Amino acid sequence: MKKNTTWQNRAAQTLKECRHASYAMSQLNSRVKAQLLNEVARELMKQKRTILIENAKDLAEAKKHGLSPAMMDRLTLNSRRISDMAQGVRAVAGLGDPVGRITSRWRRPNGLVISRITVPIGVILIIYESRPNVTVECASLCLKSGNVVLLRGGREAFYSNKILAQIFQKVLKRRRLPQACVSFVSTTDRKAVDFLLKRDQDIHLVIPRGGEALIRKVARTSRIPVIKHYQGICHVYIDRRADLKKAGNIVFNAKMQRPGVCNAMETLLVHRKIAPQFLPTIGKRLIESGCELRADAASRRYLPGAKAAKGSDYGHEYLDKILAVKTVPGLHEALEHIRRYGSGHTDAIVTRDKNAAEIFKKEVDSSSVMVNASTRFSDGFQYGFGAEIGISTDKIHARGPMGLEGLTSYKYLVEGSGQIRTS
Amino acid sequence: MKKNTTWQNRAAQTLKECRHASYAMSQLNSRVKAQLLNEVARELMKQKRTILIENAKDLAEAKKHGLSPAMMDRLTLNSRRISDMAQGVRAVAGLGDPVGRITSRWRRPNGLVISRITVPIGVILIIYESRPNVTVECASLCLKSGNVVLLRGGREAFYSNKILAQIFQKVLKRRRLPQACVSFVSTTDRKAVDFLLKRDQDIHLVIPRGGEALIRKVARTSRIPVIKHYQGICHVYIDRRADLKKAGNIVFNAKMQRPGVCNAMETLLVHRKIAPQFLPTIGKRLIESGCELRADAASRRYLPGAKAAKGSDYGHEYLDKILAVKTVPGLHEALEHIRRYGSGHTDAIVTRDKNAAEIFKKEVDSSSVMVNASTRFSDGFQYGFGAEIGISTDKIHARGPMGLEGLTSYKYLVEGSGQIRTS
Repeated sequence: MKKNTTWQNRAAQTLKECRHASYAMSQLNSRVKAQLLNEVARELMKQKRTILIENAKDLAEAKKHGLSPAMMDRLTLNSRRISDMAQGVRAVAGLGDPVGRITSRWRRPNGLVISRITVPIGVILIIYESRPNVTVECASLCLKSGNVVLLRGGREAFYSNKILAQIFQKVLKRRRLPQACVSFVSTTDRKAVDFLLKRDQDIHLVIPRGGEALIRKVARTSRIPVIKHYQGICHVYIDRRADLKKAGNIVFNAKMQRPGVCNAMETLLVHRKIAPQFLPTIGKRLIESGCELRADAASRRYLPGAKAAKGSDYGHEYLDKILAVKTVPGLHEALEHIRRYGSGHTDAIVTRDKNAAEIFKKEVDSSSVMVNASTRFSDGFQYGFGAEIGISTDKIHARGPMGLEGLTSYKYLVEGSGQIRTS
Repeated sequence: MKKNTTWQNRAAQTLKECRHASYAMSQLNSRVKAQLLNEVARELMKQKRTILIENAKDLAEAKKHGLSPAMMDRLTLNSRRISDMAQGVRAVAGLGDPVGRITSRWRRPNGLVISRITVPIGVILIIYESRPNVTVECASLCLKSGNVVLLRGGREAFYSNKILAQIFQKVLKRRRLPQACVSFVSTTDRKAVDFLLKRDQDIHLVIPRGGEALIRKVARTSRIPVIKHYQGICHVYIDRRADLKKAGNIVFNAKMQRPGVCNAMETLLVHRKIAPQFLPTIGKRLIESGCELRADAASRRYLPGAKAAKGSDYGHEYLDKILAVKTVPGLHEALEHIRRYGSGHTDAIVTRDKNAAEIFKKEVDSSSVMVNASTRFSDGFQYGFGAEIGISTDKIHARGPMGLEGLTSYKYLVEGSGQIRTS
């Protein structure tokens, strides 16, 4: 009981400092923010040795707990990876300031001039897993957008995350800015997260980054708005009028270039009229590259080596070299399938038929809708945002790949010359 | 127990219908939406008698329960008020379609063309109190923005709200559109609301409209994103360099034109150097109009007839002819006061000093910041939105007066010619 009280007091104190830092942070000008980030990049390079020592503590713990080789790899830092982090911070420093932009301005008949201007959101809590570079990415993006960030990483990367956050704090302190601008939850107690998620008076937004279980838990517990996506069940529909060479390349790329990520294709839909020409070649290519196919009966006629799909294969996120395949009678049925099984993340059509493309674009309500391009492009960097804090399948605030703009809110400025309201 | 199961089943069925209607709704074109709304306006005029009969049932119930005269007035419909409603619906019909707008479009080096296009949010739950015209306003705005609306009005207006929703449903049915596009929660059981607020898989946004207690309850219970403001603790700061004639008119207007609304001023801050000239005249004018003043000692020197302010008078939302007054040593202290006591709704400065205005505009983080204008202008109609579904003091999605644009989300369209990702 005593212990709980201690971390609760500490968490409450941290939140108080965050709220206080939030004002200083929102007033920083673009030049200072860029300078701060460039200093952080230099400091990361300078402190490589210290970072690796702290990372080694996490790796030793992880070994003791028998983490999988994939997880160990995600956790491991080395000189190259730290240089990449520093490069990432410099890139964010070089982006345009998302705050203080007048996005709209108009004059009313009574002479009032109204402007809409972007402002930081305030205090943002980021809850994430394993990869320590998320610490640096999120802190940079929040700093650039004038937001105070409260970082809560996975316990397996505790020491690595802590030293990285401390590097930001060191630079902030040197500039006489509140260190709480980049705050770090320094307990691994899970109750601390539940406590923070109830503090909607202090924290304005929560962004969970990690597996579906983590995200669902955060969304269920939080009283603060959460921006998230649960799953990326991405579809590619090959229309009757598709260019088959392009279709083959897009399908192969969408599934195989990086199967473990949220914008990889999980289900292939093929128009039945084109299935006989399209499926044999792409099927062979996928199977030869080690991809398992799970197909309906109609598709299996053209896919030797494919397994029979079960109902549960549709709408399933494999995150692996496995692909569900289905033949559909036409565009209408493809749209219905996507409505029923999609997760609103990214869905693509391959077609030369402009009319079919228009219908697909209008009817598919996913955060990204692709025409003749790989689903893998659904990504903040690929969209040219220069940064990505996450991908959202929510319907409010930010949708799709979310860069700096998604980390801002706005306010209205109303400038008059003594106007009063008469009705 | 059996009864609960019945309304739960019915609510689940309603949600299923809403989800289904959502697709049809999102695909309606601008012309059809305008026609539907104009038909609703005609139907409201035609059914005046029926509406008044249903309203009479609510009024009879209200009398039995001893509702206050103010509440009775808010509840009462008459021929004129119904005509005004119809006029409001026609006005919404005439607004531009907020859906399908390309808000941004760019080309990437690899030839991909990316567009950001507005889409409806989906299913919106509106929870509101007493005034039946909210039913018509919210249904019109949601229809115009392609959203399915689920209406949950106060029990005291049950019959009035129901007949008004039915008028929308009648028009939808005539057009062979799902009546669930405008859905009505046809039980007054409070548990129904708690049940709905947990259904984040079916409902995308909740907008509570009513008193602070209602809004707090909704925000506390909901697992769905809520857009809201709790309070409007609006400040007007009279700077040392204010034009005193304009200052007097703005203060009088901000407090007295309609004291019971959220954008009315609750606290007046006055620079101490200008207090001797400014306070006596405005104090007299306010008191003579029946306004009670609660002022600090420094202000009371110039305000004969003012009461002594207690600490709790600052940051208090009176919604009445009562005003807290405080003298401050300068702009800096005014800003500090607003940061500490404000509710982030609307705050104003009156000054001829451009520099002071700039600092105020930059540092005050309220959803609307006014310079030389009455706080009463913080309103969707006054901003020229042609509509208002509410005012938000939240930091995500929509902030300040929220019109049709706030009822939309967006998606990205990515158009290529076979691009695949290589890194």
